[in-house]
Amino acid sequence: MIRKVVLSGYGNVGKRFAELLHSRKQDILNRYGIDLLLTGVIGSRGMIYEEKGLDLGILLNCKMGSDGLEEYGELRMGAFLNKLFFKGDLLVESTPTNIETGEPALSIMISAMEEGMDVVSISKGALVTNFARVMKCASDRGVRLKYSGATAAALPTIDIGEFSLAGSDIKSIRGILNGTTNFILTRMMEGSMSFEEALQEAKERGIAESNSHFDISGIDSSCKILLLSNSLMGTELSLKDIDIKGIENVTKEDIGKAKLNNRAIKLVASAEKNQEGVVVKVSPMEISESDLLYGVIGTNKGIVFDTDTMGQVAALGGASNPVGAAAAALKDVINLYR
Amino acid sequence: MIRKVVLSGYGNVGKRFAELLHSRKQDILNRYGIDLLLTGVIGSRGMIYEEKGLDLGILLNCKMGSDGLEEYGELRMGAFLNKLFFKGDLLVESTPTNIETGEPALSIMISAMEEGMDVVSISKGALVTNFARVMKCASDRGVRLKYSGATAAALPTIDIGEFSLAGSDIKSIRGILNGTTNFILTRMMEGSMSFEEALQEAKERGIAESNSHFDISGIDSSCKILLLSNSLMGTELSLKDIDIKGIENVTKEDIGKAKLNNRAIKLVASAEKNQEGVVVKVSPMEISESDLLYGVIGTNKGIVFDTDTMGQVAALGGASNPVGAAAAALKDVINLYR
Repeated sequence: MIRKVVLSGYGNVGKRFAELLHSRKQDILNRYGIDLLLTGVIGSRGMIYEEKGLDLGILLNCKMGSDGLEEYGELRMGAFLNKLFFKGDLLVESTPTNIETGEPALSIMISAMEEGMDVVSISKGALVTNFARVMKCASDRGVRLKYSGATAAALPTIDIGEFSLAGSDIKSIRGILNGTTNFILTRMMEGSMSFEEALQEAKERGIAESNSHFDISGIDSSCKILLLSNSLMGTELSLKDIDIKGIENVTKEDIGKAKLNNRAIKLVASAEKNQEGVVVKVSPMEISESDLLYGVIGTNKGIVFDTDTMGQVAALGGASNPVGAAAAALKDVINLYR
Repeated sequence: MIRKVVLSGYGNVGKRFAELLHSRKQDILNRYGIDLLLTGVIGSRGMIYEEKGLDLGILLNCKMGSDGLEEYGELRMGAFLNKLFFKGDLLVESTPTNIETGEPALSIMISAMEEGMDVVSISKGALVTNFARVMKCASDRGVRLKYSGATAAALPTIDIGEFSLAGSDIKSIRGILNGTTNFILTRMMEGSMSFEEALQEAKERGIAESNSHFDISGIDSSCKILLLSNSLMGTELSLKDIDIKGIENVTKEDIGKAKLNNRAIKLVASAEKNQEGVVVKVSPMEISESDLLYGVIGTNKGIVFDTDTMGQVAALGGASNPVGAAAAALKDVINLYR
């Protein structure tokens, strides 16, 4: 079965996704019977499109971003278009996350769905800002939407909640959903460092971005737990409904006190059912050695579901890097069409 | 959508499954649109069957096992049949696991598939002894087969390998797949007990059965890793291909030595790809604190997949009890028809 894929965003993750489509094309056809054809890539200045499939050998040698798409357009005459064009079976959305307006992802996703395309989203912005609208559009148009890449990527979260726990009642979800902050807290624990020192180390090692506010303020974790709660616990929350506390104010003293009690400080994102509804929050918390999240160290992530019939079920790990995010999107694509 | 279910085996797990069907009927209909109707239960001396659905209020008040089915037959005239009868959409198989012949599960499953029924198996015997035959029968008859209940039940294992890691290459699977042996080893670690003392405690607490050979010899773990390897790594192994070592010979001294090095002894079941193929084995092993399986204590279970694109992905927990096993089967049923 041929499936024509349009990718939006050709940054770090988008390019890795194109690489996976190229290197695994035959393997995916053999294992799942799906022939994935990348027909278009959308950038900020236009898009490249070829009905019979882009030449990935050429594309992957071009630069990242819109410069690369224009470069491709020069090498493949007529492939570069100045306006967007939605045709194909599936959109894979990987533009930068924008939590103010959700754009450009929001318009791109809506346009694709209106043309009857399924969507696999890696970026979080459109879903975080406009969850109900995006879901309604998918349902109105009869298309499907998956977004593992937006909910901790290679760490299975939505999959487990939706499939592995089907039929049970999820009473709470607690997760360490951001690798950068977990790395910083781990280094503060292990190396008796201050927050600033550990952040500096994370930047030097390429783990924290130069603008790390999105991670350390807890917003990235909040986006993920918001999507998990809305998807798995029936809420319709937006970021303003979440009590968010980042790790900026965690001190060496806090860490020392926790260590004395054989506890660790982790940035925990949680969604817990109580009698009034579901309470969602993000905050640094002391957790004990017996907690399934205790062993989540470095850039690792983890999630624990508390259920009525299956007890506690946790998932840990999953590569926190662009390949892991691209692989999570590929997984969603395969699960849509297998 | 109505789905007619026949259950084989009315022991501890089978009865819990019937209870879940009863208590969650409306919830499953609301959430997934599936109306599950239990029309038959097969026991060792015959079966009960009612085309319009058994009266679960009556059935759940009957004893477990064939005595209970006969009791039901007395209360509902004509419901007890002396011979087996396969009609419906789905068989849920929960007879006791027999790793010598796979019977009676094997004949029951084959008969159901030949009548066009899908199968959800909780028991391991038929699959462990006759994996290729059962798979071929399902494929020939165009029916589907799921068996989460046979591969660590409430701990997601097959689900993760099949769906959450779709498109990636699984290089190895390592798991603590048996709660009883993990409880015994945990008690030996924590309480400086001998194997015999910890086994005794497990029996007193109802964690180990009176005949615990199946668990402590490593056979139960072997059955599970065998099914995982055959399902996820393309092998066609049977038990004789697995190098199996149980925990009977783990001494206090072994445990002491491991503890000195901040390591723990766990019964690890593994399937690892190498250049010649896949090596599957079960053995007590020392594992380090940084291992994602290190924190799996007591009756908990855990599994770690090592992949090329998603790094290490682990699942931990999942209730190790009859309700957890029944809930795992219910999950499979829902995922077949949602």
